[in-house]
Formats: sequence, structure tokens, C-alpha cells
Amino acid sequence: MTRDEIPTPALLLDMDRFERNLERMAKHVRAAGKQLRPHAKTHRCPEIARRQIAAGALGVACAKLGEAEVMTRFGIHGLLITTEVVTPSAIRRLTRLVAEAPDTMVVVDNAENVDALARAAVEDRVTLNVMIDVDVGNRRTGVQPGEAALALARAVVHRGALRLRGLQGYAGHCAHVTGWEQRREASRAAMAPLMQTRARFEAEGLPVEIVAGGSTGTHDIDVELAGLTELQSGSYCVMDLDYRRIGGRADDALTEFEMALTVATTVVSVPTADRAMVDGGLKAFSTDKPFPPEAVECPGVTYGFAGDEHGRLTITDPARAPRLGDRIEFFPPHCDPTFNLYDRVWCVRGPRVEQVWDVAARGRSD
Amino acid sequence: MTRDEIPTPALLLDMDRFERNLERMAKHVRAAGKQLRPHAKTHRCPEIARRQIAAGALGVACAKLGEAEVMTRFGIHGLLITTEVVTPSAIRRLTRLVAEAPDTMVVVDNAENVDALARAAVEDRVTLNVMIDVDVGNRRTGVQPGEAALALARAVVHRGALRLRGLQGYAGHCAHVTGWEQRREASRAAMAPLMQTRARFEAEGLPVEIVAGGSTGTHDIDVELAGLTELQSGSYCVMDLDYRRIGGRADDALTEFEMALTVATTVVSVPTADRAMVDGGLKAFSTDKPFPPEAVECPGVTYGFAGDEHGRLTITDPARAPRLGDRIEFFPPHCDPTFNLYDRVWCVRGPRVEQVWDVAARGRSD
Repeated sequence: MTRDEIPTPALLLDMDRFERNLERMAKHVRAAGKQLRPHAKTHRCPEIARRQIAAGALGVACAKLGEAEVMTRFGIHGLLITTEVVTPSAIRRLTRLVAEAPDTMVVVDNAENVDALARAAVEDRVTLNVMIDVDVGNRRTGVQPGEAALALARAVVHRGALRLRGLQGYAGHCAHVTGWEQRREASRAAMAPLMQTRARFEAEGLPVEIVAGGSTGTHDIDVELAGLTELQSGSYCVMDLDYRRIGGRADDALTEFEMALTVATTVVSVPTADRAMVDGGLKAFSTDKPFPPEAVECPGVTYGFAGDEHGRLTITDPARAPRLGDRIEFFPPHCDPTFNLYDRVWCVRGPRVEQVWDVAARGRSD
Repeated sequence: MTRDEIPTPALLLDMDRFERNLERMAKHVRAAGKQLRPHAKTHRCPEIARRQIAAGALGVACAKLGEAEVMTRFGIHGLLITTEVVTPSAIRRLTRLVAEAPDTMVVVDNAENVDALARAAVEDRVTLNVMIDVDVGNRRTGVQPGEAALALARAVVHRGALRLRGLQGYAGHCAHVTGWEQRREASRAAMAPLMQTRARFEAEGLPVEIVAGGSTGTHDIDVELAGLTELQSGSYCVMDLDYRRIGGRADDALTEFEMALTVATTVVSVPTADRAMVDGGLKAFSTDKPFPPEAVECPGVTYGFAGDEHGRLTITDPARAPRLGDRIEFFPPHCDPTFNLYDRVWCVRGPRVEQVWDVAARGRSD
């Protein structure tokens, strides 16, 4: 099958670019003396996780228990679940998962939850690997750094069925700060309390084997922190417009990693001279960013959302007006929610479809 | 199973409200002397389509061929595919579908496409039911009303393998005009050229058995058009915040149809006194509208997106602060792309889960 025969809209992965992205990140963390546990929420695709691990990653981070269940089913190990698991039925699913994949870790930010996890672990005869989730200014989940984190860690180590592994601090609010120097300043300020908390853990003899954090935006910033042991960057493997525009260390765009993910569409209507309609709309692309998809190597057109199933191309150069049936690929604004719209990703190398991979954890936000 | 045991985030359908919505629309079109072929792109759920047809609908409209393939597999007939089918491989899929479901209709807006459809129909020995897609100002797909539509219709009727059934004009730009009178004015202006085109079809003896159009926003407006034969309203069956806010004939909100669709979430973190985090974010809700999901019967909190898997509740009334593990349901901003995130919808009546329906055409934008 060729690239041009894929039914559209479809999610395409450029294998050359993808493989170079994996190599570059592997080389980067190796050179920095760090480890990598990339976020699988980006792709939800076990085959991509497998290749990340083959390239040297410790495992993958999963945003949700449901994602982790799928990864385990596909034989992916070294999982860190980065959202708290709190309801009795979810905790039961977690202990079942850990019985199968004992190296799985889960984050906590609440003493009541620590208690519930410890009781379930005893009942179900498993040991739960636990990380303290610290709020480093992202104002999402996480206990406050310093004393609150220490108190929670003490609660964990007092429970025999729980094994404290360390700290997680995700500075999501720094990931997309534009300009490398500004981003570095923001991330250093955010991560400093996490490093101080780490020092207090060590002083008190609390286990802190792992300190995890970092995004694609801060992949070459957070490695400067001596106390950080592993990066959780996810988007680097495929990239998206949102990350490209934040700028790199030496460039106005973040170019260390290549734009490997596209959505292929077909021109289904050319109703007027200044307009062409493609078959990709709100259900084909992420819509959470304030900018639209960008046509790949297709000058003379700009994309605008035009409903669930349509994109409106405004033709700015009539000489390059698309024709009925033409195929046009777009870079998505945001890779994670775009992957989550598709059941499969078509792996292409030039004009050839090499493989088709299941986005097996798509929709598994539970 | 009870409502509170459903793993979250999850899509819930309130059966009482849903059933009343179907009844109300059925009664409305009957009273107006019109027919209904509701848009299944709203829900992509064959069981909902089946119930719409049981309530009197002629069939369902499908935005895409892929959706129609799924509906046919589940025994749903009376399909109208409302996006042009243009590539050779897609046209081949269409003729296969029509061999199975001969009453399927497809829209056209281009003479070259008419030619391709006619040739494929002859080769594959089927008759294709065709509607002329007319642009009534939505600036999406569709031939211009008047002479251009007539010329295209003549091209269709000259091909023995094609059977012209009539006209479609979707005034999507009128669907969400706020205020009933303003919306009526906008829709009348948009639909007038379609009605004039209909008259010219009749004068020329061109078949115009069906004239289809209308949205949930114009369901009680477009029925005033003598020349319109059927409504395509889709969202009425479940509603969403976007339609509720446009206002009804006698009300500031559109209340003829009830808010039957919610996303259930769980509070997974209560890190500070002014904030609680739920487990539904960019992957749990549509994100294409400029306003957030709204908590159902949960005063004292407002929702903000906080990444792929989290929503941040700002607690405006500390006395009502959510607790860890609490379940909170939200009305989604836009029903169609929200349905498209979920593999199943949990049908609830009060606290009880009655059924679970597959959103079998989810992701089938191809």
C-alpha cells in the first residue's frame, strides 16, 4: 500500500523522523547522565512504547490507570502512573495490575489515599511502588513541596505494603514558555523547591531513588538539575506545532526533534476559486490550541476549522489551488489529543506504508 | 451496576431526557407535516439511530462514508451521506455499500465527481441515489444555488446509473445564531435561494422529491418552508451547552430539548482549599468552543481545562468544596466531538445503569 492510498482522514507517522527523534533523545539523556521514562499519554501506542524502551528508556509514564492496563497487556513494563488512583474500584484494578507488573509505580498526594492504597495492597498481597507527587507550581495535582511532602512520605514509609521510590514534579506550566532562556528561568524556579525537598528527604533518610520530571520543552534544561534522575518528556517522539513554536536553545523553533506526525486529508470539494474543502475537521485534529493545523509543504493555502468533518482551505495563491481528490497533510496543533482520536497510526517511509500500529490505549482515560 | 460505579471519565446518557427528546422532535415534525432524517454524526451510535427511526425518522444522515458503513452493518437503513465521496477507492466503497443498502443517498457538488460516480455505478451494477448539495451561505461544500445547481442536476439525470432525488442545503452558519427571531431571519435568508432553486427544478421537470436541511437550532424555523421536505437536526437527541445557550422561541435558553448527555468525572486530588482536580481534561470533552464544561447541579465550583487528563475546579464556595473521590458530572460544550472520544455511552435512569451502547462509528471519519 502507498501513502496515497490510505483512507482519509488518517494519522501518519514519518518513520525516518520518528526514529531520529528516538535516537536524539536517547543520546541526549545518556550524555547528561540521566534516564528517560517518556510519557505514553502522547501516543497511547504500545508499539511506540516498545521502541522507546528499545532505544534505552526505563519504561513509560502513563497518565492514567487505563493506559497502564493496556501497556501491561502488550508487555510494556517499567510503568509510572502519573495521576492519583483514588476510588475503591480503581484501587482494586491497580492491585490487579501490580500483581501482573510488580514494577509499576503510582503517585500519591494525599494521606487518606495513602491509607486506602496500603490497605488494598495488604488485602491483595502486593507491594505498591509509590512516588510522592509534588506540585511545583503547575497548580494541578500534587502535595506542596517541603514539609507537606515530607509528612506524606513518612506516612508512606510507615506502611509495609507500600514502597517509597521518590518524587515526581511536573512543571507543565513551564513546558511551553516561549524562548529557551525564559523557559530555563521558569523551569529552574519551578523545580528548585523539588530539589530542596529532595535534599530534605535525603537528610531524613527517606528513599529518593527516583526524582522524575521534565517535558519536551525542558528536556535540555531540567537535565542540568543534579537531583533529577529521569525525564518524562513525551511529545519529542513525534512533535507538534505547539512545541515547535516555543523555540530551541539556538533557534526560533524547537528543531532538535522533527515533526513526525501528520494528518492526511483529501480535498472533497472545490466549490469556488478561493476555497477548497478537505475531509478533516473537529474530529480529525486536536482543537485545544488557539491556532489551526498547518498544511505540510503546501504554500498558498491556510486551514480553518469548518465543522466536525471539514476544513476550509483559503486559497491565497490561485496558481497553487488544490484540485478535487488532492491529498494534503497537516501538522496537528497538539499531538496527544490528536493521537487520541485515531484507532491506528500509519507508519510511512517516503511514499510507502511500512506498518500500521494500533493506538491501543486510545480512549483509555479511565 | 449503579451510576456511581461507572469508571470515569465516562459518557452518560440520561434515558428519561433522551426519550423525551425523541418524542418531542417526532411530534414536532409530524405536526409540521415534515419528515426527519436526523444527523447520526452527533452520536455515531447505531442504537441511538435505531431508536430515532423507531420514533418515526426516515433513516439517518451520515457525515461520512465510514459512518454509513457502520450504520449499515448494524442494520440501519435510509442513509444520506452528506459529504461528497470523491476518491476512486472511496467511490468503490460506496458502490459496495449501496449494493447492500440500495436506499443510501449521497450528495454531489461537482460535475467531475458526478461522472466518476456514474462510471463506478455502471461498472459495479448499482443505481446511486444522488442529492445536489447546495451552498446556502455556509461556505463549506455545495454548488451555488440557481443555474449552477440546475446544470449539475442535468448532468446527474443524464446518467442512467444515477437517480436524482433532490436537494440538500445545510445552513450551518445559522444553527447557532443567538436569539430565535435573529436566527429565523438568518435562516430564512439562507434558505430562500434553496427554495428558489427548488422551484426552478420543478419548472424544468427535474426530480425534487426530497429537499433536506435544518439544524437543531432551526428545527422550529425551517419547517415553515413549504418546499423543505425533511429536517436533518442531530443534536436535539442529547443537546449540549452550545445549543442550550442560543435561546428558544419563548426562552433565553433552548429548552424544548433536554440536556441528556453528561461526562462523569471523579475528584482525584484536593491539593488546596481553593482547588480540586477531576479526572477529565482535553481527552474527555470537546474543546472547540470558547467556553468550558459546566458542572451539573454542583454550585460553588467552576471548571477549567488543565491538560490531557485533568480539569481544575476552582472552589468559589468553600462550604461546598468537593472531597476526594467525589463524582461530578459535566455538560459538554459540544456533543458531536465529545461522543467521538468515547467507545461507549452508559445509559442511566436515575441511579441505575440500564444499558451500555457502543459508539460503534466513533473515529469513522473516513
